[in-house]
Amino acid sequence: MRQRYQLKQRPQRSRSYDSDDHERGACEWCEYALVITLATVLLIGVSALTIFWVFYYRGGYAWADDTPDKQFNLHPTLMVAGFVTFCGFSVLLYRICRCFRRIYVKLLHAIFHALAFPCIVIGFLAVLDYHNKKGINNFYSLHSWIGFVAMGLFGLQYAVGFFSFLLLLICNKGTAGFRASLVPIHAAFGILTFVLGVAACLTGLTEKAIFALGADRYSGLVDEGIIINAIGVSMVAILGVVMYILSREKFRPAEARERLTRTSVDL
Amino acid sequence: MRQRYQLKQRPQRSRSYDSDDHERGACEWCEYALVITLATVLLIGVSALTIFWVFYYRGGYAWADDTPDKQFNLHPTLMVAGFVTFCGFSVLLYRICRCFRRIYVKLLHAIFHALAFPCIVIGFLAVLDYHNKKGINNFYSLHSWIGFVAMGLFGLQYAVGFFSFLLLLICNKGTAGFRASLVPIHAAFGILTFVLGVAACLTGLTEKAIFALGADRYSGLVDEGIIINAIGVSMVAILGVVMYILSREKFRPAEARERLTRTSVDL
Ligand code: HEM
Ligand code: HEM
Repeated sequence: MRQRYQLKQRPQRSRSYDSDDHERGACEWCEYALVITLATVLLIGVSALTIFWVFYYRGGYAWADDTPDKQFNLHPTLMVAGFVTFCGFSVLLYRICRCFRRIYVKLLHAIFHALAFPCIVIGFLAVLDYHNKKGINNFYSLHSWIGFVAMGLFGLQYAVGFFSFLLLLICNKGTAGFRASLVPIHAAFGILTFVLGVAACLTGLTEKAIFALGADRYSGLVDEGIIINAIGVSMVAILGVVMYILSREKFRPAEARERLTRTSVDL
Repeated sequence: MRQRYQLKQRPQRSRSYDSDDHERGACEWCEYALVITLATVLLIGVSALTIFWVFYYRGGYAWADDTPDKQFNLHPTLMVAGFVTFCGFSVLLYRICRCFRRIYVKLLHAIFHALAFPCIVIGFLAVLDYHNKKGINNFYSLHSWIGFVAMGLFGLQYAVGFFSFLLLLICNKGTAGFRASLVPIHAAFGILTFVLGVAACLTGLTEKAIFALGADRYSGLVDEGIIINAIGVSMVAILGVVMYILSREKFRPAEARERLTRTSVDL
């Protein structure tokens, strides 16, 4: 009898532990709204700050043979927009749009990545062409190696997502199990891609600060150096907020699990 | 009747989905051993490579008034050892030592962090003293700002862990619920600290490569530049392996949940 009582009590306790969170109500919504607002402000802010930096200190944009430096400026701007702003929103979507139908969330996710894609391609071509015009070696720096891995992962993820979406269109029911089994891998690699994108941006900013200002002016704490550092620190804040939001899901394993099951059943 | 059938079927299906993984047996163990071996090799390798770099290209170590550059060399070495090697093992412990009793895993976790702590403190003092000896400003770079946040988070995490361990010693049963509620927050911040530590290392390596070699030799793909890039790429690989191992736990929500419940009951 004791044994049975114990067996019964276990899941009970576990269920109440899990649902604790669901029932916080007002407090939870308040925190939720706060965090999502913070994320939105940071994600848009980091791109805005980069554009401000380029116009105020780096002379704006151009793509012509006699202004390679202005052409370079497209590189940080488009990379930050693609890898941080668009990818950041795309990752957060799944937490922001909880009450949407899954298919709409997927479409939004695809749209944000479709926006990120040309940014990344043009951002890469801009710096490649800049190096060739100036006669500088390609792929010599740690930054470019990290960027290469990040872009490779992004491409792979894009291909997997596209392929799986195609399967959904062709045969929804029959491929649901297979597609659901891709989800955790796609999610883990997605977060890694995002983190590597941020790491590429941070090393790129460090390089650019030293190249553009020189070690002496950078260590003299001139205004431009502080602006560049601020762009980097916003990215660190974004990393923190995104990880916080993703870990909140972990606080609710019951729901995550339910969705996992749902995904494989009635997606 | 149909309704009841459905209600019964759901948890059944979900349980079998979860336990899929447990029963892979040989295949799972093989993958497990491979990934853990890879992680161990990379974590030890990155410190070894850093020490090799310092001895072969940077003249080794010292702490004296007339050799500030050799004193600086302590900074990357100790930071990589503390933030990557020791913290990396400490994070992985919870996945490596699944069959140990929880209390031993905790002790090992504490020991690895107790090893990381002096590395980080001395590594920081080495570069602070180096800057003061050379008359360079403190905290001007993006690297130092990221490093500051990473060290701050590390300190906070250390304090929380220490405090919670003290509570365990004083009153195990009574504080179990409170301590269990700290776990997800401690885990999420721990991963963020680790990622920021790696980001600090990557920006630091980029800085050092440009300061030590100059833009021209770095872009000329000299040996030392490639070694420095290789240290950075090992860290990217470590990030990938660690994230992969952590996400594998997510593949097994049933077990994670069971442990969560267990933690709050018979810890
Ligand atoms: C996720 C974002 C980024 C990726 C994937 C990326 C990728 C790359 C790649 C592949 C190169 C090498 C091109 C070549 O060698 O021909 C490069 C160069 C460069 N990038 Fe980025 N980049 C990113 C963000 C940034 C940012 C935010 C900055 C900040 C200003 C930046 C600054 C530079 C600089 C200065 C170079 C030329 C020097 C070098 O090759 O390292 N990058 N980037
Ligand atoms: C998690 C690891 C690391 C942390 C937390 C960290 C932290 C710091 C801090 C706080 C400073 C500023 C000291 C001051 O201004 O007085 C600094 C400076 C420096 N660090 Fe690191 N560091 C780390 C890893 C590395 C690595 C791996 C290298 C590679 C060689 C490196 C290279 C440098 C350089 C060149 C400086 C002097 C220039 C500057 O202040 O930016 N650091 N580091």
